Amino acid sequence: MENRITSLLGTAYPIISGGMVWCSGWRLAAAVSEAGGLGLIGAGSMNPELLREHIRKCRAATDKPFGVNMPLMFYLADDMMKVVIEERVPVVFTSAGNPKKWTQTLHDAGIKVVHVVANTKFALKCEEAGVDAIVAEGFEAGGHNGREETTTMVLIPQIRKATNLPLIAAGGIATGAGMLAAMALGAEGVQMGTRFALTQESSASDAFKELCIGLNEGDTMLSLKKLSPTRLIKNDFFKLIEDAENRGASAEEIQELLGRGRAKLGIFDGNLSDGELEIGQVASLVRDLPKAGDVVRMMVCEFEERKKALSEY
Amino acid sequence: MENRITSLLGTAYPIISGGMVWCSGWRLAAAVSEAGGLGLIGAGSMNPELLREHIRKCRAATDKPFGVNMPLMFYLADDMMKVVIEERVPVVFTSAGNPKKWTQTLHDAGIKVVHVVANTKFALKCEEAGVDAIVAEGFEAGGHNGREETTTMVLIPQIRKATNLPLIAAGGIATGAGMLAAMALGAEGVQMGTRFALTQESSASDAFKELCIGLNEGDTMLSLKKLSPTRLIKNDFFKLIEDAENRGASAEEIQELLGRGRAKLGIFDGNLSDGELEIGQVASLVRDLPKAGDVVRMMVCEFEERKKALSEY
Repeated sequence: MENRITSLLGTAYPIISGGMVWCSGWRLAAAVSEAGGLGLIGAGSMNPELLREHIRKCRAATDKPFGVNMPLMFYLADDMMKVVIEERVPVVFTSAGNPKKWTQTLHDAGIKVVHVVANTKFALKCEEAGVDAIVAEGFEAGGHNGREETTTMVLIPQIRKATNLPLIAAGGIATGAGMLAAMALGAEGVQMGTRFALTQESSASDAFKELCIGLNEGDTMLSLKKLSPTRLIKNDFFKLIEDAENRGASAEEIQELLGRGRAKLGIFDGNLSDGELEIGQVASLVRDLPKAGDVVRMMVCEFEERKKALSEY
Repeated sequence: MENRITSLLGTAYPIISGGMVWCSGWRLAAAVSEAGGLGLIGAGSMNPELLREHIRKCRAATDKPFGVNMPLMFYLADDMMKVVIEERVPVVFTSAGNPKKWTQTLHDAGIKVVHVVANTKFALKCEEAGVDAIVAEGFEAGGHNGREETTTMVLIPQIRKATNLPLIAAGGIATGAGMLAAMALGAEGVQMGTRFALTQESSASDAFKELCIGLNEGDTMLSLKKLSPTRLIKNDFFKLIEDAENRGASAEEIQELLGRGRAKLGIFDGNLSDGELEIGQVASLVRDLPKAGDVVRMMVCEFEERKKALSEY
């Protein structure tokens, strides 16, 4: 399964575990990398010293390449980037910000840069910024999401048409069949959040994981559209925001209702009523909590099986 | 490309043109059927006598199988079904209603029945009702849409897991690559609305077609969520509804703003400001107005090319 993504990342498979807040610590990243994918550490829920600890523990647990996901709007991003450079992390996935800001600095430090986008406009900015690859993430993805609401099925061919950059698909992918579909659409790899959030090595609370593997169609929905659209499970907190939106509340009022630390409260601490529970639509297809390495192996196996079946058409 | 869908429909390819209001008359249906797909006549914008005329003209234009799409909630549905049975249409695609209501009657008349669903619950109702196949339509589709907002990428594997019924994917598909992706996800055929609405034989106005082939990502959005969620182009009418929703307007108020005949006004008459402009997200990938038969041929050709490329992974 060698292609531009595996060459760039130095992995056996073009399978990446997303850097999800409160899920993607060194245990998950190391397990995915060790199985031949690329594990990402999610810096968005850490501070610089904790990130350094996770990077070192990940490196001690695997000699395979791994990466860090960095939301560029994060108030600690500058200090976090220093840690990433000092620790010589092989690849950084940047998101939620301008890809120009860090790409040259990271490249100068010998670090590869992949940027996450939800539309063609930002894919073209990535090309200008000289990033090494992009992740295009569709509407079905959990957590933060594009304003255009473009789904993976439409977004991947759209981005493929606009740029020749190595392209990783994200949003709605949890199986080898999903990976095959993404490749059929023009992607060269997949990034999965939900599937890896729901594994044994994920740092999410057991309560959150158990809730997620029981979700059905329609149990997640895009929320917080007046702030930054975010896909959440429809719990009490979601309904609080929905009611406020339905009565025409302003962005400021919604920001006040949201407050701080809601994602930690829900995902990490397991408060399923009041927490902000970020997970993708594809949770409705996930019914187990396997080891992350087994997810990688099952994906590859199913990908090959389905590819063979498809070739018989 | 023979499978359960081509056997059921008696077509060369498992490619169906949706029965779109104000687009899918006999010209479009006949062109698609003649090229080896299945053309549907959209009964939702006709009356019984007009439907009879379109069926007869379609039959005169092609000796290949074709079908009729019938929204079951349509106030004329009972009389329309009589016409369909009298005219011995080979297959009826039913939507927006209970699949139990007509399946036995149509089967008794020797007519095959395919029902359109947007979730697993209705797919299972279709199984009970004894329909011959289902169309599973994702969030990215134009016009009427499911409340769960499940995208094609997630919906197809979900439905595939729940039922063994022959399965046609719809929503976000306009190319051979999209068809290959749908097949990778477990579908056995595709129904395309947007792609066929934007062809020479479509009855939509030139103004509507020209607008659609210039759309970008984010230019359609799900609207009318308090009535029946419908994907529309963001024109003046859309903004009227959006403003009403944002100030907390009731379903009754929104119904009054909608009034009657808005889809005809926009799609058929070409009033691009005040009309209800139904089209899918995938319009942003469509940049030409070819003959419908050429769409079928290009799909098949690209499907084969991409399948070959994919097999080299």
